[in-house]
Amino acid sequence: MAKILLKNVQALLEDGSVAEKNIAIENDKIVKIGEVDTSWVPDQVLDGKDKLAIPGFINTHTHASMTLLRSYADDMQLMDWLQNKIWPIEAKMSSNDIYWGAMLAVAEMIKTGTTTFVDMYSEMHRVAEAVEESGMRAVLSRGMIGVAPNGQEALAESKKLFRDYHQTANNRIRVMLAPHAPYTCPPAYLRQVVDSAKELGAEIHIHLSETLGEVEDCKKQYGKSPIALMEEVGVLDCGVLAAHCVHVSSEDIALMKKYNVRVAHNPGSNMKLASGISPVAKMLSAGISIGLGTDGASSNNNLDMLEEVHLVSLLHKVHHLDPLAIPALTSIKMATEYGAKVAGFDDIGVLKEGYKADITLFNMNSTQWFPRHDLLSLLVYSANSSHVDTVIIDGKIVLEKGILTIIDEERILYEANKRAQDLIRK
Amino acid sequence: MAKILLKNVQALLEDGSVAEKNIAIENDKIVKIGEVDTSWVPDQVLDGKDKLAIPGFINTHTHASMTLLRSYADDMQLMDWLQNKIWPIEAKMSSNDIYWGAMLAVAEMIKTGTTTFVDMYSEMHRVAEAVEESGMRAVLSRGMIGVAPNGQEALAESKKLFRDYHQTANNRIRVMLAPHAPYTCPPAYLRQVVDSAKELGAEIHIHLSETLGEVEDCKKQYGKSPIALMEEVGVLDCGVLAAHCVHVSSEDIALMKKYNVRVAHNPGSNMKLASGISPVAKMLSAGISIGLGTDGASSNNNLDMLEEVHLVSLLHKVHHLDPLAIPALTSIKMATEYGAKVAGFDDIGVLKEGYKADITLFNMNSTQWFPRHDLLSLLVYSANSSHVDTVIIDGKIVLEKGILTIIDEERILYEANKRAQDLIRK
Repeated sequence: MAKILLKNVQALLEDGSVAEKNIAIENDKIVKIGEVDTSWVPDQVLDGKDKLAIPGFINTHTHASMTLLRSYADDMQLMDWLQNKIWPIEAKMSSNDIYWGAMLAVAEMIKTGTTTFVDMYSEMHRVAEAVEESGMRAVLSRGMIGVAPNGQEALAESKKLFRDYHQTANNRIRVMLAPHAPYTCPPAYLRQVVDSAKELGAEIHIHLSETLGEVEDCKKQYGKSPIALMEEVGVLDCGVLAAHCVHVSSEDIALMKKYNVRVAHNPGSNMKLASGISPVAKMLSAGISIGLGTDGASSNNNLDMLEEVHLVSLLHKVHHLDPLAIPALTSIKMATEYGAKVAGFDDIGVLKEGYKADITLFNMNSTQWFPRHDLLSLLVYSANSSHVDTVIIDGKIVLEKGILTIIDEERILYEANKRAQDLIRK
Repeated sequence: MAKILLKNVQALLEDGSVAEKNIAIENDKIVKIGEVDTSWVPDQVLDGKDKLAIPGFINTHTHASMTLLRSYADDMQLMDWLQNKIWPIEAKMSSNDIYWGAMLAVAEMIKTGTTTFVDMYSEMHRVAEAVEESGMRAVLSRGMIGVAPNGQEALAESKKLFRDYHQTANNRIRVMLAPHAPYTCPPAYLRQVVDSAKELGAEIHIHLSETLGEVEDCKKQYGKSPIALMEEVGVLDCGVLAAHCVHVSSEDIALMKKYNVRVAHNPGSNMKLASGISPVAKMLSAGISIGLGTDGASSNNNLDMLEEVHLVSLLHKVHHLDPLAIPALTSIKMATEYGAKVAGFDDIGVLKEGYKADITLFNMNSTQWFPRHDLLSLLVYSANSSHVDTVIIDGKIVLEKGILTIIDEERILYEANKRAQDLIRK
């Protein structure tokens, strides 16, 4: 029995208030928030003075191993960037490269307060290895390109990944099926994926309506929007996590609501790649679950969820010329509570008794946290992710006073850098 | 004679390249970049391993002491926020409050790599005191509201501030005259300010065309835009640093170019307050000098220039749906080289022999800096301001390994928090 007590910590509660509390953790769960009975004796006490506890961030869309390509190619047109820079390098990546890229991502995510991520890439058993070893929580999916020569192989790998890893590692790992996008996966292929998803009981993770060009091409080719096409081929029946949804119409939004499509909004990536501004306020009003994601580090260029929190609030305020759009609490909920729904969990994303102990503690001992009129406002509009001090996942301390406790940061930085440099020299 | 050697540091050079260099500093100046003669013996050597040296950030528009109101009021309409929250508290601020608010700002700015700031507020002799003591560089101005009962008193204070402080503290302090804005300073008052500016040889710092409402009201009242009105009353003859310029027309831009109006662009503030998106790309093409500013910490809510660098690049990419808009080097130049021009300096903003030694060193030993394909891209798109390690201003080390060397952070945090809490209880 491992028992941890967070003592006298400022805690962001389910109702959006922040109050000083004790938080008792037993094994993987929060067992008490508030007065802890003296008969409950913890193995370890963490002093909450000057700390803010929030539910760990949930990164609802990324490609972890693409950290290896961070800063390799920026300020380019999307297709030029993909065809001439990213894809040629990805073709050379070995299974070990994928592993170390994922490890670099996991190290960065933990250090910046993320406790769960949703991933789409290849060689996903190696990403699963990184997740298992690091103590992280993740929803993994093998990205499938239906038009590629290895389309069938990728589907077989996806199914194997689901059978081998879904709900393993004390349920820290879950698996979805991930057809990459409608423009890379034709309807016949998507129907195969849908059949497999139904057979396995798997949900689907897919890029939808990221760019205007994609939506226009889809309408030209199929006479309907990507969202409507997904309804037709049965994808929306499976439970869908849709990344981006930048260019969605009112009709699309109604369909998404009908089928409970959950959205991973990636403000940093959409801004940097100039994809456009997603109608987040409209989708939220329609009752759609929206989480935040960083997308891959080669397009963002980091895995910093607090930055996405900041961006989502600022971007939609200026877009709507409304300073009340996406207030602080909404943006934090998108990164935690709503993100949990998007990723398909019902026991993370909130600091709540009975929920998993996935907790991020910010050290408020720096200028950006003074004066302390409103801790939530300070977190959303002033702090940065380097103020993350301690991270607990599944009841285990994986970061303490800024130091990774389970994985070896120095080795990760060395391996990732060496492999990345080798890749571009190959 | 104080001599500092930065040894084997990755340095951002004037041409935009990054290369390993030695940088020799003698008193307040950079005397050599490259091979340093062995006959030149430094008093102190700083190891540049894993460090990136850039010119210190120049924050071209802020209200330093408003740090005291950080997180006091957010997610509100501008006028509600000003009239019901900000102004009532500002009316209660004592001279000591202004001093400690400025000190909190200075501490935060130094820790996040800013070496120069342009300020507009009241009780500016106390801000000057904070600047003198801290080793910071600043352009100070007493904000004047022409329609306020103390309009004449404020002008007298402005002139006194100029006479007492302009080009003092080894030229670390400069002074401008600051009529707040056209909507708070009628033409007759602005003409008085212009006369004073010409008499003193002072330049003018003013808010111009921040909101659409302001521009529309100005046209209704005076039959011309704020920029055109400034031409008419003579403000543009004095040398002008114009904050915001969000809503400027092609005609305005032509006038700004004619009179060399320099712009402080505040992307974070414009986004959070939903003021709009400034035509930065258009102004840059027109050859206008544009720097970056944070605006006050009660509207931003921090003084983090690297965040503004990130925002300016992302915001204008998505606004123009062009991933090539404001590339990494342009955004960094706005925060350094261009910012120096905006603030009125010709010897800071670039790492260059003969220039002032105002240098910020980033510690690249964290996940966000790996792999190291392109250091400039990592700085702009991946790093955060907590990676600032060492800051040198006017040849003096004011931050070393993240620790403030001249001012006492702990006392500043205590005083600023206590005073801020007292203010809202008064």
